[in-house]
Amino acid sequence: MAKRADMAPFTAHLDAVQRRANSALCVGLDIDPRRMPAGIPPDAEGLRRFVQGIVEATADVVCAYKPNLGFFEALGEDGFALLRDTLDCIPASVITIADGKRGDIGSSAERYAAAVFEVFDFDAITINPYQGSDSIEPYIADPARGGFVLCKTSNPGSADYQDLHCIFEGNEMPLYEVVARKTREMAARGNVGLVVGATYPDELARVRALAPELPILIPGVGTQGGDAAESIRMGSAENGMRAVVNVGRQVLYASSGDDWQDAARREATALRDSMRLALAVE
Amino acid sequence: MAKRADMAPFTAHLDAVQRRANSALCVGLDIDPRRMPAGIPPDAEGLRRFVQGIVEATADVVCAYKPNLGFFEALGEDGFALLRDTLDCIPASVITIADGKRGDIGSSAERYAAAVFEVFDFDAITINPYQGSDSIEPYIADPARGGFVLCKTSNPGSADYQDLHCIFEGNEMPLYEVVARKTREMAARGNVGLVVGATYPDELARVRALAPELPILIPGVGTQGGDAAESIRMGSAENGMRAVVNVGRQVLYASSGDDWQDAARREATALRDSMRLALAVE
Repeated sequence: MAKRADMAPFTAHLDAVQRRANSALCVGLDIDPRRMPAGIPPDAEGLRRFVQGIVEATADVVCAYKPNLGFFEALGEDGFALLRDTLDCIPASVITIADGKRGDIGSSAERYAAAVFEVFDFDAITINPYQGSDSIEPYIADPARGGFVLCKTSNPGSADYQDLHCIFEGNEMPLYEVVARKTREMAARGNVGLVVGATYPDELARVRALAPELPILIPGVGTQGGDAAESIRMGSAENGMRAVVNVGRQVLYASSGDDWQDAARREATALRDSMRLALAVE
Repeated sequence: MAKRADMAPFTAHLDAVQRRANSALCVGLDIDPRRMPAGIPPDAEGLRRFVQGIVEATADVVCAYKPNLGFFEALGEDGFALLRDTLDCIPASVITIADGKRGDIGSSAERYAAAVFEVFDFDAITINPYQGSDSIEPYIADPARGGFVLCKTSNPGSADYQDLHCIFEGNEMPLYEVVARKTREMAARGNVGLVVGATYPDELARVRALAPELPILIPGVGTQGGDAAESIRMGSAENGMRAVVNVGRQVLYASSGDDWQDAARREATALRDSMRLALAVE
């Protein structure tokens, strides 16, 4: 972790990146060989060209990229090399988030953290809180690396547990609120955020109220039905930043023709601009 | 997944393996280069020899092996090859459990499942339930592959969320009980189990009562303080099986000298026998 030892805490770094890019857009790199556009073969070399093409077309429009590790792992050995190549082609000025929903207890969590921050040098990771604070701690030990803790996720099944009413410190509240409150207590080093789905704008507003200064990663815009403009309005902190709005398929697979790079750029730019406008008119 | 298409559902397969081996012992393969015994260099070739040596020394004493994916991922490219070699040297008569605590929503969960079941051909996986039933479903779509859902984990921090009292169907109960109840509803295909830490014997007994027929994976014996004999008594189903008691470091690193293979076998055999005895005298 030496490389980033003298870096600012993650949240300050995110602020600087968002200010410079004037963008809250994160592109989710869910690379699926079954969805390659015209002219891109679904083999290792094709996928590499596709990722590089997407990054080239969008790097100056985004604040972050979020590779979903599952899509890379499913490719086996090729996926490992592809993830390395993906990180290599992302400019240092853009945040990289390992979307792995990792968890596990102390010694094992340390190994997952080593994989993401040392083997791959990601800036941040997504973390599943179910195993409790001591399972989250190994991921956020280095202030320069960020941890986004799952709070209220974008899928319908998030209601099963996250919406259950719990007794916490004498009050009744949904589990995701407990997660927001407890996660905020772990944020003193300035490198902890939350994940709240764009598909639940009311819950997003509630979490923002409970954790006014934490970064919030907001997936679920586009294919899943969430709205980018609404997300940025509900999710931004007082400084107009710290909402990281993720869009995946809608950008990656904006065109299945050979204009896929132009289409991805057009889509990403439109999303960035709609979010700028949403904040400006507020 | 063609290879196992005509196989029995996972739980029936586990029963057959446990009956034949007359063992409830699972050895956790948390391969740590910093802990290699005398004569084993901490490089790729050394780690491969170590894993093969452990499997050779213990395969007829166990019902399962559980590689923790974090330990392999932390090794980068070498870890990928090591995991492949590890699975290759485990006899087909022994269950393999990918301990990855995976989760994520539909399309991403499908990719994680493909990595574990298609790229690596594991028999089972550990799953984090926080994102809800639709995030668990992709892992258990194939009845021949098992999913162990985290319920009450072995670490102290498991109290943070898993012990929170929730309102579920009009009653108040800890979150881990809700997980046990809802997971049981997903077990109709005969391939779903739970994870309960040996460090919480009362909770283990409670989960066994709530889910009488589900397999329970029980980590936390040994270094973490759980007791193997107590675990098997509290965790076994009525048929005297379906408790899978995991021991990692206590077996792997039983000796730091060049007798590490003998020491691992001795430790594993003693654990297996203490569990046989605990069931026999019950």
